[in-house]
Formats: sequence, C-alpha cells, structure tokens
Amino acid sequence: MKTYTNPAEDTWNDLLKRPLYDVSELEQSVKAIIEKVKQNGDRAVKEFTYRFDKVELETLRVSPEELNDAKFQVSRQLQNAIEEARMNIETFHARQLHADVYAETTPGVRCWQKTIPIDSVGLYIPGGSAPLLSTVLMLGVPARIAGCKNIVLCSPPDRSGQINPVILYIAEILGITNFFKAGGAQAIAAMAHGTESIPRVNKIFGPGNQYVTTAKQIVSRDRVAIDMPAGPSELVVMADESADASYVASDLLSQAEHGPDSQVLLVTDDEKLIKDVVASINDQLSNLPRKKLAEQALRNSKLILLKNKQLMVRMINLYAPEHLIIACNDYMELAEQIKNAGSIFLGNYTPESAGDYASGTNHTLPTNGWAHAYGGLNMDAFVKKITFQEITKYGLFNISSAVTEMAAAEELQAHSNAVSIRLKNAEI
Amino acid sequence: MKTYTNPAEDTWNDLLKRPLYDVSELEQSVKAIIEKVKQNGDRAVKEFTYRFDKVELETLRVSPEELNDAKFQVSRQLQNAIEEARMNIETFHARQLHADVYAETTPGVRCWQKTIPIDSVGLYIPGGSAPLLSTVLMLGVPARIAGCKNIVLCSPPDRSGQINPVILYIAEILGITNFFKAGGAQAIAAMAHGTESIPRVNKIFGPGNQYVTTAKQIVSRDRVAIDMPAGPSELVVMADESADASYVASDLLSQAEHGPDSQVLLVTDDEKLIKDVVASINDQLSNLPRKKLAEQALRNSKLILLKNKQLMVRMINLYAPEHLIIACNDYMELAEQIKNAGSIFLGNYTPESAGDYASGTNHTLPTNGWAHAYGGLNMDAFVKKITFQEITKYGLFNISSAVTEMAAAEELQAHSNAVSIRLKNAEI
Repeated sequence: MKTYTNPAEDTWNDLLKRPLYDVSELEQSVKAIIEKVKQNGDRAVKEFTYRFDKVELETLRVSPEELNDAKFQVSRQLQNAIEEARMNIETFHARQLHADVYAETTPGVRCWQKTIPIDSVGLYIPGGSAPLLSTVLMLGVPARIAGCKNIVLCSPPDRSGQINPVILYIAEILGITNFFKAGGAQAIAAMAHGTESIPRVNKIFGPGNQYVTTAKQIVSRDRVAIDMPAGPSELVVMADESADASYVASDLLSQAEHGPDSQVLLVTDDEKLIKDVVASINDQLSNLPRKKLAEQALRNSKLILLKNKQLMVRMINLYAPEHLIIACNDYMELAEQIKNAGSIFLGNYTPESAGDYASGTNHTLPTNGWAHAYGGLNMDAFVKKITFQEITKYGLFNISSAVTEMAAAEELQAHSNAVSIRLKNAEI
Repeated sequence: MKTYTNPAEDTWNDLLKRPLYDVSELEQSVKAIIEKVKQNGDRAVKEFTYRFDKVELETLRVSPEELNDAKFQVSRQLQNAIEEARMNIETFHARQLHADVYAETTPGVRCWQKTIPIDSVGLYIPGGSAPLLSTVLMLGVPARIAGCKNIVLCSPPDRSGQINPVILYIAEILGITNFFKAGGAQAIAAMAHGTESIPRVNKIFGPGNQYVTTAKQIVSRDRVAIDMPAGPSELVVMADESADASYVASDLLSQAEHGPDSQVLLVTDDEKLIKDVVASINDQLSNLPRKKLAEQALRNSKLILLKNKQLMVRMINLYAPEHLIIACNDYMELAEQIKNAGSIFLGNYTPESAGDYASGTNHTLPTNGWAHAYGGLNMDAFVKKITFQEITKYGLFNISSAVTEMAAAEELQAHSNAVSIRLKNAEI
C-alpha cells in the first residue's frame, strides 16, 4: 500500500490512472470462435467446451431434474439468505418502473411513451473459483420484473459437466428454465446468433473475463445489445476522523480479495486514520483464505491524504469509482456533491458487501471510469421505450406550418407534402 | 417497387432482410484519423477539415458574432416554426423525468436511486446537402432539460468555412456556445479525446455517415459512451381499406426522399390499396425536387399483401421498423400488439414527418432491427442513475445473515468480515 500526502491537483490524473487492458490481441481468436459457433451451432459450442472447460457434453441444456434437484444441495440457511436478498432486490427494482408518459403537446397532438420489456434477454454467469451466485439474482430478478418473455442463462460447466448447485437453485426459484452449460466467447456467440438448442436473444447481460467481454463487444456491433463494458472491480473509501479504522480496513480487504486487479483506494483528511487502517489491514489479512489475492491487490492500492473534504470530493468525481463508501460525519452533505460513482454506501454501518448481496441495489456497476457516463444496471436496461403519436386533423393543422417550414429549410419537399396533402380539403 | 402477395412465413426473414453495410474496411482509416487527432489535437482536426471539407480554418470555434448574427438570416416564419417545435419537444421530454426512487427494503436498510445529468455531452450534426437542423433540437433540447453542464456541438463547415445559419440559430437559442466547425471521424475523435479547443465529453450523440458511425463505435470501446448504432432510415406503413392511398403514398415518398438506402415498406391486407398507392406515388413523384433519390429508394421498396392483420402485426414485430404508421380502422388495438418499433404514428392524420420535426417525440430512433433491443432517444440517455444505501446498525443486523451466508457460498470471507466486524460489539 502506498501513501500519498497532499498530491498536487495536476498529478491526480496520473495518480488515479487505471491499468490499461489491451484486448486487441484477443480479438482475432474471439472472432474465430464466434464465426465457428455461427456456422456449426451446438457442435461448435460443445467443441469449445471440451477445449476450454475440459468436459465432453452430450446436451447443452440443463435438465429439469438438475434444476429441481439443486435445492437438496443448498442448506436451509442459504435458501433463507437467498430469499431475503431476492425480496430486497425485487422491492427496490420494482419501484424503478415508472408510469407511461403522456402529453398533449399541442391541441390535437397527443404523444406518449410506453415501456415495453425486451423480449429475449441472455444472462451470462461466469464459472471459476468463486461462483457468482449473487449475480444470478442481480440479473434474473429485474429481468423477471420487467416481464422479459424469454430469459436465457449460460454458465460454464465444471470438469464433471456440472453447474454449481446454488446457481441452479436460484435459476429454479426465478423460473429460468432456458439454462445452458456454456461459457466464454462461445456462450456469448451462441446467445447472439442462436444455435439448435440455445435461443438467440436481443440483449446480453453479465460479467466475465476478457474473452467474454471482447465477445460481447464484437457481437454488439451488429447483432445484439449489451449491458455495459465491464472491467476489474473498484472501491474508494472516503473517510474522516469519525470513521472506524477496523471497518475501513475490512471494506478495503473485501474489495482486495476479488483478485489482483481489484482497485482499492482510501481518500481521507485524517492522517492518523491511514496509520490505523494499515495496522488493521495487516491484522485482519492474516486470517483470510484469499490472503494471497488480497495482498496482490493491496500492493497497487493507494492511501491518499488530502487537506480537506472539498478536495476529496473533487478527486472522487474525477476518478468516478464503481463503489464509494462515505464514512464521514457529514456523509449526507458529501453524497449530494458526488456526481460520478456507481453505487454509494453511507455511514459506518453500510459496508460495500451489503450492496453486493442483499441491500436491494444492483451490484452490476460501471467500472473503469464509466461512471462518468453510465449508471449501474437498473430496470431501464431490461425495457425499451416506444413513442406513439396520434394527431387529429385539427392537431395536424395546428403544427402544419412548423412542419412545412422546417421541412423546407431541410429541403425535404415530400416531408412537407405528407402534411399538406392531408389538409388540402380540410375543413377545420 | 415490388409487390409480394401472401409470402409464406418461412420466407419473411429473407424478404425483410436489410442490406448489410460492412464497415470493417473503413476501420483502419478511421483509426488512423482518431490516432492523429489524439496526438496533434486542433492541428490534426484542421488538417482533416482541409482534406475532407476543402476549407482552411484558422479557428475551430464558432465565434459569438457568428452565433449572434445567425438570427438575421432566418426568416420570421422559420423562427416561429422552430419555437413551436422546441416547445413541443420540451413538453414531451420534460415529462420523461421521474422522481428519485426510494425504498426501505428491510427495516434500517434505506436504498435510493438518484438521477444525475451526464456532465459533458457532445452533439454531432452532419453537414451535407440537406442540413439536419431539426436534429439540433432533438439532441439539444433534452440535453438542456437534463441539466448537462457542458454541451459541445460539432458540425462540418462548408467550403467557405461557414455553418448553416439555421443550425447556428438553433444552437444560439438553446444557449449552446461550445460550437465547433468539425465534421467526420475527426470531430468524433476530438470530442472523445479533447483537443486544445474542443472539450472532451462523456457521451457522444448524433447521426452521421459511415465514417462518423465507425468512429463512434471505436471510441465507445474504451473512451466515451455513445447514443446508439445508426443506420439508414426506415418506414413501414401498415394500412387497411380505411387508409387514403394518396396519404400513404405521400408518407412512403417522404421516407424515400432521404436517399437511395432508405427502407420503405407497405404492409396491407387490401389488394386495391396497393394499386392505388402505386398510382399515387407515380403521380406525386413527378414534382419532387429529390425525385431521383426517391426513385432509387423506391426501387428497393416492398409492397406486401397479407391475408389478415394478425399476420401484419407478426411481420412488423419481426422486422422492427424505425418508424411505423398504422393507418387502419382499429389502430389503437393494433398499436397494443406492436412490440418492436422505434416510433409509431396512428391514424390517417399522423404523417411520419410530424414526428420528424414538431409533434414533440424524438426523431433519433433505432434502425436496422435495433428496435428489438433499443427504444428511441429519450431523457434516460442524458442522465445516469446512481444508487445509494444507508444502513443503520439495526438494519445491518437484519440483513447480516443474508450477506454472510451468501458471501460464504461465494467463498469471499472478507465480504462477510466487513459485516461481522461491525456487529461484534453490537447491542441491538
């Protein structure tokens, strides 16, 4: 961990720079995988599964038995935990649905905007060492609430051809039956182009490694929509003398344990806090099963001392973190000033891990500075908004000169004609 | 114009296929332009402006005098038309702002979602034969309503170094003073990376040719967000025997006059209507200034006769048109069944050109089948939604087992610790 004391503002851009991941060299091999899946469908997906996941599958689809039997492998306590989280996520996301918008903009000119669920969505859940079971809830619950008709889920099988039972269990309680054993670029390609067993979808959601991310970017150019660009996870803790060093340390560690590329920052105006946090990190680190991963991430972490809170706010808005904890006395006032962040955690009793699982907010959030332009995943991502207009003859008369004048200025005569021909014999 | 009578459903995919535009060969030259602008800033933009727009510029920024003087070149009638359109667009878009979302998901766990304008947005307005002045309203008005602090506008100059005065005038009334004479990929690169005069933005909006579109796609991979993929404009008219053939013809022509790659379709269950529409098109076509362009588009247009309205609805949902006119008796019922379209125009007195300019809806809409996944441009595109959570000690206690159980299942011990350390000495 490196400490920076009152870095000059013109050095902040360098100080806050994230590591660059150049995926351009992956692009060719990912394109080749996509092309193969497009041509050979299931057969190609199975071949890549054999090559990358080291298992030969007969069928890609998870059977109803596998889905149904999963519950017997999930403890009652974990089932309850999942149910609590599901309810909170549902409560918060359901509130994000808004009534349709209506306006009579001019007498006789009625406009409205209607929210319609995206028909088919594809959810990608990575495999790997730590199964991202919470992500099934974070993507599946809003898709369900939105009313998406077809929900397709892909996740890579382990070497015995199995999917983690908790992931199966959550899919089962959400009623997601289109569940396929497929991972990596081949899963993204299958959902983008469709295969004999995996249905084609309109939009693909979910995190993944660089192959998955690159595949999502490629198919998004001409085929399907995607949720957002994904990068390594990030946490900034903004703290003052009111913060508890051991809490701050626990938050920084919970971010660091994600992996060596995790971004961990502490920004504070309290010099003593930095010392105490470092001591507490060393203390808490020793007992962590993922100690090694956390240590690697901490090596790149930064502890930044600034003169006052105005500077802290300015630095955080420049960095635009995925997660921001504000452990300061006046956290509400400070929160008002944050313009660029994915999700914000307020006060001493709001650890980031609460939002990862169970508070109700979504944990799919903009990384890598994308919080400048994107918010986190929310209900908007699962719907589209169609506009309607219904104009009476009188209404058309009312806006006719606006249309014909502007069409003339754009030199589009036929646009103008479409109005005038309708009013030719008009008796208004 | 080709007529198709009761095409079998398994031929629809082929019948509705859009032409494919392969931009991969542009990619290298666009990348080179972006790289040059990134390195040399204004100098590179000026060089490309000299090469592509054939004019040597001393300064890229439009001067306050140019902005101020524009109004003297815009007729009073056109000024009024613009004002009417502006007001309608403002009315409809302002209604799309929703209150912040709040929920106490569990006692002591407060979550909310706050809407924040994107700080800096870049609007691109193409030059060319027909100046897209209405697009300045369609992008600028929502950016203003959203409260975006920095609005940057780029548009290519003509050979005398001037911008169309109507475009300047609209920028002026919207208070957009960051207006730059730059077009093509170099303008997109400048807004993505920033130059000495052109500020860097967080998101880029606006239509353009294939260079512009390719540049937007490239910079969106790691630099800025973009509005949506853009393609040639499209119109489907869905009509029955209640439609007026001359109105339908005028709508098809208003779409066709955009250019040779415009997509024009009529879908009807009334055989006579097709004949009458063809006759009326030939009739109306002769007086159009853009007759040649319209004729080229009409050569690829399709008139499709289907047996009934259920089939018509199904075909339209498969095609997912940018614009859909429903000129049928029962247009309200039919509109309910349309799931995939950008904007829908209802009845005999609602020409598409009304929405292009003045009804109040946005004319930036998903083309090329993207209406399966995207809605048209709306207020959501100019804002981001940040989530907050504020948890009391009691609230954390209430969700603690949900968090720790799920963290354990994901094998993330530090995530669990961040909760338990806070509750260690808790007296609830």
